[in-house]
Amino acid sequence: MSKQPPHPALLIPGPIEFDDAVLDAMSHYSESHVGQPFVNTFSEVLAMLRKLFQTTDPASQPIVLSGSGTLGWDQVAANLVEPGEEALVLHTGYFADSFADCFETYGVKATQLKAPIGERPQLDEIEEALKEKKYKVLTVTHVDTSTGVLSELKALSELVHKVSPETLVVVDGVCSVGCEEIRFDDWGLDVVLTASQKAIGCPAGLSILMVSGRAIEVFKARKTRPTSYFGSWKNWLPIMQNYEAKKPSYFATPSPQLIHALHTSLSQILSRPLEQRFADHRATSQKIKKAITELGLKQLASKPENQANGMTAIYLPEGITPPQVLPSLMKKGVIFAGGLHKEIATKYVRFGHMGVSVTDPRRSDIDTAIEALKEGLIEVGYKKA
Amino acid sequence: MSKQPPHPALLIPGPIEFDDAVLDAMSHYSESHVGQPFVNTFSEVLAMLRKLFQTTDPASQPIVLSGSGTLGWDQVAANLVEPGEEALVLHTGYFADSFADCFETYGVKATQLKAPIGERPQLDEIEEALKEKKYKVLTVTHVDTSTGVLSELKALSELVHKVSPETLVVVDGVCSVGCEEIRFDDWGLDVVLTASQKAIGCPAGLSILMVSGRAIEVFKARKTRPTSYFGSWKNWLPIMQNYEAKKPSYFATPSPQLIHALHTSLSQILSRPLEQRFADHRATSQKIKKAITELGLKQLASKPENQANGMTAIYLPEGITPPQVLPSLMKKGVIFAGGLHKEIATKYVRFGHMGVSVTDPRRSDIDTAIEALKEGLIEVGYKKA
Ligand SMILES: Cc1ncc(COP(=O)(O)O)c(C=O)c1O
Ligand SMILES: Cc1ncc(COP(=O)(O)O)c(C=O)c1O
Repeated sequence: MSKQPPHPALLIPGPIEFDDAVLDAMSHYSESHVGQPFVNTFSEVLAMLRKLFQTTDPASQPIVLSGSGTLGWDQVAANLVEPGEEALVLHTGYFADSFADCFETYGVKATQLKAPIGERPQLDEIEEALKEKKYKVLTVTHVDTSTGVLSELKALSELVHKVSPETLVVVDGVCSVGCEEIRFDDWGLDVVLTASQKAIGCPAGLSILMVSGRAIEVFKARKTRPTSYFGSWKNWLPIMQNYEAKKPSYFATPSPQLIHALHTSLSQILSRPLEQRFADHRATSQKIKKAITELGLKQLASKPENQANGMTAIYLPEGITPPQVLPSLMKKGVIFAGGLHKEIATKYVRFGHMGVSVTDPRRSDIDTAIEALKEGLIEVGYKKA
Repeated sequence: MSKQPPHPALLIPGPIEFDDAVLDAMSHYSESHVGQPFVNTFSEVLAMLRKLFQTTDPASQPIVLSGSGTLGWDQVAANLVEPGEEALVLHTGYFADSFADCFETYGVKATQLKAPIGERPQLDEIEEALKEKKYKVLTVTHVDTSTGVLSELKALSELVHKVSPETLVVVDGVCSVGCEEIRFDDWGLDVVLTASQKAIGCPAGLSILMVSGRAIEVFKARKTRPTSYFGSWKNWLPIMQNYEAKKPSYFATPSPQLIHALHTSLSQILSRPLEQRFADHRATSQKIKKAITELGLKQLASKPENQANGMTAIYLPEGITPPQVLPSLMKKGVIFAGGLHKEIATKYVRFGHMGVSVTDPRRSDIDTAIEALKEGLIEVGYKKA
């Protein structure tokens, strides 16, 4: 089995550090995409995704395509909304702007409901917006990776179902699936889209979705055909259903190696109760946030209840910029990410704490990173007030 | 370094068998998609693709996205053609029907020019079609993987440039790039699209394109915005240009592991003269085709000049079907593919001979397969007439 060579700990909010066994699965020998062994592996992956998303409703459908998180937006815009229809996009950072841009590409009108940086739109504002107009879908970024702001899904979904029962609830879970609790059935979600390279702990290259039976009905009732070919559910739903039933079929060639790696990472995740996994991420996040506060630093996410558990966006001290502090961290074997939110990109850094860096007791990534941040800031001239 | 465990030789027309070093690269430790080491790797991949496609024109642009061959069709339909415009699709099998369907998805009218099974449309018919109507693009499947029919690109491209100089020449090279000669500049091609898992010899998961400067001008002159988001060149061209210039940038997360594997396979391919690689594929193909003829079997591709060099589609003897012969081959350690062309799917099998199975002298895949086919057919009752 492969032992990874020494390398800096990748603690950006995705891609994350991967387990040896997951990386080993990436080098699986070549298999036919329509051969029974691979089809069985794909089937098990889909079954495991149902568990990860906590859905037991047979009408819901997991989808895994070669691509990345972004392709999930295309799938939503091309399959669930028809040109001319409207989407309400809740904005907590960079990724909502992009999702809105994706909708516009498909001729869908996207209205953004924005909160100040570090905040999230409030339920009463959302209620008001939903009452003003008929939206086919509402989208929410569960964790916006540019700000570390966590959205509240349960109350939001309840509100949408109450105020605008036909509106589909679409969650961008790229930076949350695998580290934040998501109860697909209980919370009445319609789509949760994600990618492989964050808290799921599998290399980048996959677009992963869970779609509700209700959303599939909406898709089937379309008056126009889907406006994507590679991302068309008309093309993919039968294939996913066949895979899950262990029947070979073909629309476009999946990546057997990535599917094997996903199989390994999902098996690892599901080998423990999910609740424990989420609790681990919360505990590590608390520890990090405490250390940051003790350092005299502030987070972008303004309140404990809107702070993500898999990443932290940290304002740098006045006068210190990412290009100063990141190389100093790198020398200590730690990679953080710079800022991404356009208005304040030079003022903050992002620390990802998802997956094996959090859950594997043999790894000391997080402690190393906290120490490195402390020392790195001092090196570039920071003195705590 | 990983040694692959014993497994049947995958001799379908993709995915193919992969080299150990390529599979090792798949398990590369995690890197930031915007970190300098990975950006340098991506840059080198793009430079190597220019060599593989034999283009030195700085205006042409290689593109590598997470996805698969099919996503190349979406990129063409969404970026080069505007809704209401027309495409002429040369048909030599299954994959032209799908490409045409992709065009229709994007509101582009696709006219197919079909040849009988095993044949390809003739130049005079193509000339006539081009004179009848203004086509924005003409597409040709270099090798149709459902029939093993090879198209002739050079004369075709010359004809298009002569008869309809504004029509872009788009080549589906999914089953040809890496095993059939392609001279992008010399032949005046505008797009060649392919995937990683065939003759390029890298696991599935990538959509790979070479686009001419002329095609990029046509793209830039669009009146409407591209009709895909994930596949939009507006989003990706700056990123690819940055990668090639070794500048970090982000639109959607690429797969560092797949890019490393592609880097390894391209380095291997380019370590020898390309001409020699194509000659190897031709020689092996001749050997296989001779053995098949000696067995008393016929190919779908009717004439030597339209027979692919990386695969062979073989009619089974009367009364013998793929479900009889494929398991018998499998017992002998060889995987072939069944038929794919709807009208005759139960009458033939497909034998892929691309990449390391052809070029690595330490491997005996091809001889094993020829023997297995001979014995397997006898086992299921075949007696040569
Ligand atoms: C919240 C969120 N949504 C969407 C995306 C896009 O995913 P990808 O980069 O895998 O295409 C990202 C990427 O980081 C993300 O963090
Ligand atoms: C000629 C041709 N075009 C397109 C495709 C589609 O590529 P993919 O299956 O990688 O999406 C294939 C797949 O085999 C092919 O052989």
